[in-house]
Amino acid sequence: MGSGAVGSYYGARLARSGCDVVFLLRSDWEVVMRRGFSIEEQTEESFQIYPVRGYRRTEEMGTCDLVIIALKATSREALRQLLPPLLGPETAVVALQNGLGNEEWLARGFPNRAILGGIVFACLTRTGPGKVKNTGFGKIELGSHRGSDTALLQDVAALFERAEVPCAVVASLEAARWRKLAWNIPFNGISVAAGGCDVGEILRDSELRRLTVGLMEEIAAVAARHELPLPEGWIERMMADTARMGPYRPSSLLDFLAGRAIEVEAIWGEPLRRAQRAGVLTPRLQTIYALLRALDRRANTPQGITPS
Amino acid sequence: MGSGAVGSYYGARLARSGCDVVFLLRSDWEVVMRRGFSIEEQTEESFQIYPVRGYRRTEEMGTCDLVIIALKATSREALRQLLPPLLGPETAVVALQNGLGNEEWLARGFPNRAILGGIVFACLTRTGPGKVKNTGFGKIELGSHRGSDTALLQDVAALFERAEVPCAVVASLEAARWRKLAWNIPFNGISVAAGGCDVGEILRDSELRRLTVGLMEEIAAVAARHELPLPEGWIERMMADTARMGPYRPSSLLDFLAGRAIEVEAIWGEPLRRAQRAGVLTPRLQTIYALLRALDRRANTPQGITPS
Repeated sequence: MGSGAVGSYYGARLARSGCDVVFLLRSDWEVVMRRGFSIEEQTEESFQIYPVRGYRRTEEMGTCDLVIIALKATSREALRQLLPPLLGPETAVVALQNGLGNEEWLARGFPNRAILGGIVFACLTRTGPGKVKNTGFGKIELGSHRGSDTALLQDVAALFERAEVPCAVVASLEAARWRKLAWNIPFNGISVAAGGCDVGEILRDSELRRLTVGLMEEIAAVAARHELPLPEGWIERMMADTARMGPYRPSSLLDFLAGRAIEVEAIWGEPLRRAQRAGVLTPRLQTIYALLRALDRRANTPQGITPS
Repeated sequence: MGSGAVGSYYGARLARSGCDVVFLLRSDWEVVMRRGFSIEEQTEESFQIYPVRGYRRTEEMGTCDLVIIALKATSREALRQLLPPLLGPETAVVALQNGLGNEEWLARGFPNRAILGGIVFACLTRTGPGKVKNTGFGKIELGSHRGSDTALLQDVAALFERAEVPCAVVASLEAARWRKLAWNIPFNGISVAAGGCDVGEILRDSELRRLTVGLMEEIAAVAARHELPLPEGWIERMMADTARMGPYRPSSLLDFLAGRAIEVEAIWGEPLRRAQRAGVLTPRLQTIYALLRALDRRANTPQGITPS
């Protein structure tokens, strides 16, 4: 579900490896049906997928063995209608999304069902309808929301591995989510709040770099308080990995520049609320959350500068 | 010096009260010479000043008894050239500016001279060349940089009082600067970083409001560490005063929206450096400083989105 960078990339990889992939393509249906998917790789061969089994509405798709949700966390309301037609009695769901609360929301709305979460460590950019550029990494971490589903996790991981996507099954999905948040919270947030910086510019600016590390330390403290500590040296490793990404623009920045809503609550709001409930002070996170929430609201306020 | 909101307003008030005021008008000279100053008051009578003794260059103005600097702190380099022609042996200087470091800079460049600082508590908006609207307050606090100059301070305060500008002489100019910073740091900063919010919108947004108070508490801690504590109840009083300002836009927001540089170092950078030297943690201030510095730089980078 979803033909943004994540859905197109992993869907195309799975299709190429022989999976029977059915795509929900809302805005891009016409172009993708005519031209297929075009995946540009950096370190391996680029490839096309054509023809594509694409649909505009989930009602036309039939039930699936596995539903991969690659819509933004901001699309939850739409999901409520989109998801049910795809669900047979045994259908499992993978939330390939950023932020916190996605699996909880799915588990509440669709109980007694295997809900997995996937965390993407990749630099994927949608460069046009059906076109995705992968400029680094590509790994997925996969975990189960309810903490069981061991066989299913192995099966899904095997599908990704067969599609040449490195995929690790993690014991704690929540711990993996915090590890990824330690990247998304600073880089996605600063890229938007600082007026459109790519990650290279953030790292080159001494004050933005200091802010990045400060935010990561706050996330590390919250994760540790939840007994899900970040691995030793994680912050240094993320900074080093990011330095190899060049002028990469996080997805929130691309969304913001394109006038789309950003995942304010999933990436910043929910982690902040968990920090507050756990009694951990996160002043930088509160600052960036407050600013992004206002920026997002104002960007989606038609009259422009001031609604007052 | 300067025909922004502050220079035009106080210069016009002093001229009306009988002072011999000579104005440096760089961009607005033609309009002001033709139409004079037009001051719109809220609670008292609006008034015009015409004709105006205005000049485009300080070389034409002659030396003065008192120079009132109403240029932004970002104009320091220009001041280096602009100020000397106005200075006779006994000329005193008043920095009617925001932020920290203005008087220090003047004292270094123009030693053995009385340097006063003035702090404006007013809601002044320049609505056009020579046109200023005062929507609240109007008070000035006046102090001496070197801590002496008692008779001079009384004389200058008397000039302002005669011009119907409430003017208080303060024992510690630095303490007064921190009191004002406790307003400028949150409201000027958030108004820009949150994408163009007026103070009313900041107060109505629960997270921006919480950030405002958090920033004020950081400033209070830094001021207290310097043994210049904010008065009891100051934060509550500023919040209450601000609630009466309505949809007021701080000067930094007007500058930013007009493509002018904002006073990043005087209002946020210098206070942050003093906090760091004093060993006071100010994570919200560092966050907002880092973001504003990047926003300001990017706004003044011709190629737009990304220089990398």
